[in-house]
Amino acid sequence: MDAAEFRRRGKEMVDYVADYLENIEKRQVYPDVEPGYLRSLIPEEAPLEAESYEDVVKDIERVIMPGAASPACTELETVMLDWLGKMLKLPEDFLAGTEGSGGGVIQGTASEATLIALLAARSKIVKLIQTDHPDRSETDIISKLVAYSSDQAHSSVERAGLIGGVRMKKIPTDSKFSVRGAALQKVLEEDRAAGLIPFFFCATLGTTPSCAFDCITELGPICNAEKIWMHIDAAYAGSAFICPEFRPLLNGIEFADSFNFNPHKWLLVNFDCSAMWVKKRSDIIGAFKIEPLYLKHDHQESGNQSHWQIPLGRRFRSLKMWFVFRMYGLKGLQAYIRKHVGLAKEFESLVKADQRFEISADVVLGLVCFRLKGSNELNEILLKRINSARKIHLVPCQLAGKFVLRFAVCARTTESRHVREAWSHISHLASELLQELRH
Amino acid sequence: MDAAEFRRRGKEMVDYVADYLENIEKRQVYPDVEPGYLRSLIPEEAPLEAESYEDVVKDIERVIMPGAASPACTELETVMLDWLGKMLKLPEDFLAGTEGSGGGVIQGTASEATLIALLAARSKIVKLIQTDHPDRSETDIISKLVAYSSDQAHSSVERAGLIGGVRMKKIPTDSKFSVRGAALQKVLEEDRAAGLIPFFFCATLGTTPSCAFDCITELGPICNAEKIWMHIDAAYAGSAFICPEFRPLLNGIEFADSFNFNPHKWLLVNFDCSAMWVKKRSDIIGAFKIEPLYLKHDHQESGNQSHWQIPLGRRFRSLKMWFVFRMYGLKGLQAYIRKHVGLAKEFESLVKADQRFEISADVVLGLVCFRLKGSNELNEILLKRINSARKIHLVPCQLAGKFVLRFAVCARTTESRHVREAWSHISHLASELLQELRH
Repeated sequence: MDAAEFRRRGKEMVDYVADYLENIEKRQVYPDVEPGYLRSLIPEEAPLEAESYEDVVKDIERVIMPGAASPACTELETVMLDWLGKMLKLPEDFLAGTEGSGGGVIQGTASEATLIALLAARSKIVKLIQTDHPDRSETDIISKLVAYSSDQAHSSVERAGLIGGVRMKKIPTDSKFSVRGAALQKVLEEDRAAGLIPFFFCATLGTTPSCAFDCITELGPICNAEKIWMHIDAAYAGSAFICPEFRPLLNGIEFADSFNFNPHKWLLVNFDCSAMWVKKRSDIIGAFKIEPLYLKHDHQESGNQSHWQIPLGRRFRSLKMWFVFRMYGLKGLQAYIRKHVGLAKEFESLVKADQRFEISADVVLGLVCFRLKGSNELNEILLKRINSARKIHLVPCQLAGKFVLRFAVCARTTESRHVREAWSHISHLASELLQELRH
Repeated sequence: MDAAEFRRRGKEMVDYVADYLENIEKRQVYPDVEPGYLRSLIPEEAPLEAESYEDVVKDIERVIMPGAASPACTELETVMLDWLGKMLKLPEDFLAGTEGSGGGVIQGTASEATLIALLAARSKIVKLIQTDHPDRSETDIISKLVAYSSDQAHSSVERAGLIGGVRMKKIPTDSKFSVRGAALQKVLEEDRAAGLIPFFFCATLGTTPSCAFDCITELGPICNAEKIWMHIDAAYAGSAFICPEFRPLLNGIEFADSFNFNPHKWLLVNFDCSAMWVKKRSDIIGAFKIEPLYLKHDHQESGNQSHWQIPLGRRFRSLKMWFVFRMYGLKGLQAYIRKHVGLAKEFESLVKADQRFEISADVVLGLVCFRLKGSNELNEILLKRINSARKIHLVPCQLAGKFVLRFAVCARTTESRHVREAWSHISHLASELLQELRH
């Protein structure tokens, strides 16, 4: 949708809202739909081709309004997470369908998804151990638990351990910044020997520093054999898995207990919208469910996503997904991902063609890690100059002791000319800096 | 703002967004403001009288855009929480100002605020005990901790204990459903004698079942003397404290470590917006701060509210507060609260005038707890009929073993005629039911 259409559609929507407010007393206070009413009103999958705005918006009265905010909010969310799961070709286990035991839910951010997964895993292992040892207290068991992640994992993973009150250990990565099976196995053996209880591994697909991928085809079988909950955090990279050529990066997902990525990062859904799936809904619900009388209702068993998250209140975020998926279509979204990856590759070529620079990590998706050949100090000065000039903004990272600049293609409107301008700007600032240093 | 003005203003805003998108390349990538730039651009307090929409909207370019999303988002939030804190006449300790050690932050819901407070208290007590006993492990200390709340507290408080992995005990309430000092003192003595470590008390002002108020003037001094973190959850009732006649309900706040209420419940700010204040920012930040290189920036010390919450990403929710506070003015918001309380009192009078019914709890704000004199079964049937008719919707509660109906005045557009119609509807259904039972 271009700005001109946005002006027209936005104003129509303002009128829709005003009409709603002016006529609210004509609407029914409480919906009379049955649980599950919504699924049969819309297709089972996201459309391949883009639909028109008219088609989407006219479905609001047909699909949403009869179910008001509740249950429409919960039901559309469940179906949208199924749509998105199918777009990613998630194993059937992760989908809710009408009879599945898995399913998806929208969290605010990947931080919350990781925490929820860790808490569910903690609750599950405590119950499991107490089944065999009914005398063992929860606090005693928790004091022995240990969770793991990559040494490249996002800070939110460490924070989840802090909040959950469990030990969190970082597994060293290989030369590609990826956790391999052997590295995890080694730590597990040491920890078991020390009397600890490994219970949770958070794998990262697309790390924040360099977009590296943990080797989940090796890690998954180990976690399954050792009864360790494997959560996969693909916050940024997950969106790319809707393209067949990037889907192999998700191979091994079949071993995971939970999976999360942020459509608000790279799938054109506005912040916040973090999509989380679990194989067994009962694992999550069991960790959080507390039900006083004022939250009871006639359809207790039909799903209440408050048990899947920390807040009780919920916003109607699945509407954003429904609009975006239909207005772009799967093909449109794939084209968007491919365009960004293409732009990152273009930037990579520009860097590679300049002998003063080096690429610091494989360019797999939309992130290019690069640096001037030379000291960390040199690169720190370059970054400072780039950011002080305020034409572009780069965020650095440390990779194997090296200070590295990160060029991330992430805005909806980025074109080749922006990438070329950015490179020319960086290259110019580097020339200035190197020349000064020669004098 | 009526629907007609909403149509006009909404469309102007759509144009503003479209203009922004069309001209985005003319804007600076990174702001060049200094930390704290925003506070001096706006008044120190919310206006008493309503301002015009024009006045508010023209400040977007003057105040917000120079600071882009960041730091404007953080800075406006800090100042808005100061505005709101002043509206509530919170003790100075809770305000950030330019030099204060306290301050406010927006959370999504009261559930999150309670959890954050509990985690901060947990972290603080662990550090405190470890200062004297460096050999004592965190898990050992946590296994002895105990948190408390009213037996009327919201289920989210129990859930916070579950997530934090600590014991949570419910303190029995008096005949007004209020926790009194003596009741807490008794349990504390028993628990200390049993070797437990009391560390957290969540007081409720305005309980969910009956809008009862824990006696914080008694509880606060006990918590302070016993070094127990007192968190106050006033999720619903908090909005009323902007009126001088309801402010005494908050007396005792000076003893609290943290305080929370939801402007999205009753102060005309759209969901979600839960306002939380702490006396010592460092207590909260200390519990969550983990800072990798990619989150570092040049103004580390100037405030990063990601350390105050579970997610890292943040939405620009303080804009909603800024608009609402200015477009209503303090007087307009007070009038709104008073109107709802008046409507609840009106409903209470109607109930009291009908000998078949009884009032089940003091009507202090916008909630009326009532029931038919008679059995719980009778009231359960009445509720079912009321809700099946779908003209109004009531949510029940249990009070001292009695099944009670709750009439809550909470919609922006509720008028006296709605309250009278609702009562006439309830009264009619009750007559039908009682007549059937006589036959």
